[in-house]
Amino acid sequence: MTTLPGIADIHAAAARLSGLIVETPLLESAELNKRFGGRILFKPETLQRTGSFKFRGAYNKLSSLSAEERGRGVVAFSSGNHAQGVAASAAMFGVEAVIAMPADAPAMKIGNVRRMGAQVVPFDRFRDDRMTVVRPYLDKGMALVPPFDDPAIIAGQGTIGLELMSQAKALGVSLDAVAIPCGGGGLSSGISIAVKDASPGTAVWAVEPEHFDDTRRSLAAGARVSNDPGYNSICDAILTAEPGIITFEINRRNLAGAIAVSEDAVRQAMRDAMAQLKLVVEPGGCVALAALSSGQIDLAGKCVAVVLSGGNVDFATYAGIMAA
Amino acid sequence: MTTLPGIADIHAAAARLSGLIVETPLLESAELNKRFGGRILFKPETLQRTGSFKFRGAYNKLSSLSAEERGRGVVAFSSGNHAQGVAASAAMFGVEAVIAMPADAPAMKIGNVRRMGAQVVPFDRFRDDRMTVVRPYLDKGMALVPPFDDPAIIAGQGTIGLELMSQAKALGVSLDAVAIPCGGGGLSSGISIAVKDASPGTAVWAVEPEHFDDTRRSLAAGARVSNDPGYNSICDAILTAEPGIITFEINRRNLAGAIAVSEDAVRQAMRDAMAQLKLVVEPGGCVALAALSSGQIDLAGKCVAVVLSGGNVDFATYAGIMAA
Repeated sequence: MTTLPGIADIHAAAARLSGLIVETPLLESAELNKRFGGRILFKPETLQRTGSFKFRGAYNKLSSLSAEERGRGVVAFSSGNHAQGVAASAAMFGVEAVIAMPADAPAMKIGNVRRMGAQVVPFDRFRDDRMTVVRPYLDKGMALVPPFDDPAIIAGQGTIGLELMSQAKALGVSLDAVAIPCGGGGLSSGISIAVKDASPGTAVWAVEPEHFDDTRRSLAAGARVSNDPGYNSICDAILTAEPGIITFEINRRNLAGAIAVSEDAVRQAMRDAMAQLKLVVEPGGCVALAALSSGQIDLAGKCVAVVLSGGNVDFATYAGIMAA
Repeated sequence: MTTLPGIADIHAAAARLSGLIVETPLLESAELNKRFGGRILFKPETLQRTGSFKFRGAYNKLSSLSAEERGRGVVAFSSGNHAQGVAASAAMFGVEAVIAMPADAPAMKIGNVRRMGAQVVPFDRFRDDRMTVVRPYLDKGMALVPPFDDPAIIAGQGTIGLELMSQAKALGVSLDAVAIPCGGGGLSSGISIAVKDASPGTAVWAVEPEHFDDTRRSLAAGARVSNDPGYNSICDAILTAEPGIITFEINRRNLAGAIAVSEDAVRQAMRDAMAQLKLVVEPGGCVALAALSSGQIDLAGKCVAVVLSGGNVDFATYAGIMAA
């Protein structure tokens, strides 16, 4: 198998991304600290270029291609956040991008990808095979930018971990735990490498939506298992069939565990993010905050970082959750 | 009259606030830059402790009292953001706080003030005289923390200007203009001192809601004039009767002008902040973004900073505006 990415790859990614990404701040809320009985530090990648962390990995991947490979254009499939990351990166390199997106992806995400100049190819996420959809473009010589199971993608997302550890150090705190939204595992595995490198004792948790807890069940089984078909979730950004090969190999070494959260907990977390942090967080981006109420992460007197991974949510969906 | 606060007072305030406030980041959106044809840098004081800039001035004012004065407790009147700033500051100093708040202030603001341990005294903002409401507490020896017309308050709010100029410099840009929400003028006057000190050529604009454009009309008249009674506005945070004496004296020297924006423009700006910046901004906190569409600030090819001053808005109000 591919060599696993390591801390040196994350440092290299950070150097490539320097000046192009937002170093997202660490934020906290006195009210949430009081409620949870610990100190909760939020890393809002909602404020990142394209409204999610995905730009980090996508740009790092495009940087890692040769100019000749990149010049033939790039292709990706994504429900929308990776799509925007790839579209923005391709626009910055001045190369063509084709993105296969589920026809029921949030309209805001589809619109943003088009506005960044990429071609959108819609597909049915319950029936179509993603690789079949993108095959004609790969055959034309375009390079695939995978959503998570790729060393350059993982290293790019891992730069969040570098920032997090350095910002926590500047605050004079040591992190007892970090909670991270998890779909295919690119974000959690990347961050886990940087966190474990700086602080082996910090517990790293992946958080998934109910019925899409493939990483949680894979950790329990000791091998990659898939989600049962037939479920749906408001957490569109993190609905993957199963963990990646590389991401799971990293996660099974580094994670303290994975936690599944209900849709009601996600909605409440989105309302808490609005009221206490003044941040717009999309459902899939808010699962790690939702996990704080699960009782599975030790919070009392602890210092815990929570990654808010994206904020690309349609007005109507968001208004409905805020009004509830 | 009182000596006008100057840049030295703002530096002193910054030293007092260091480590207690969030150094709010500068954020930008590729989409908004494209739409306005310039580079727009947002200073989100929505992310400040208590959800608005008001903590800066309130804490600086409490710091400037003697321990003996402060120990007798503090009293303030406010629609909610200054209230929260004073309540949080009083809690940090361990002194009593009484806040007179309009009975129709957003429930979130009233709830937050109570949760921070302050006593809330409701009043009718259309009928009651604010000073009459707080008089019994002043008579008991409690110190008044004015909402804007006070050198220590102005200097505290001015620390935003220091951060803004230093962050712009770090980005390697020079600001052509700064747009700032304006009620009584504490925020705009304070920021104007720091901006003009660092960059005399930068135009500083105050932005007000329609029918509450007392600073705009006062600048035109060359003297403080009041708003006509009988109007209401969704911009609860910045509905003052007239400019302050000190704030107007500073603003008439430093401002390029003041701009009045419609409620429709404010609602659109709140939706832009949600979709493009992923920030929850309350109506009064969003007027400076709304002013970008007014045509009154030269944007083409320019670099313009916009202060988003607060994010304390009720769920129902916010959901209604997002759903529109």
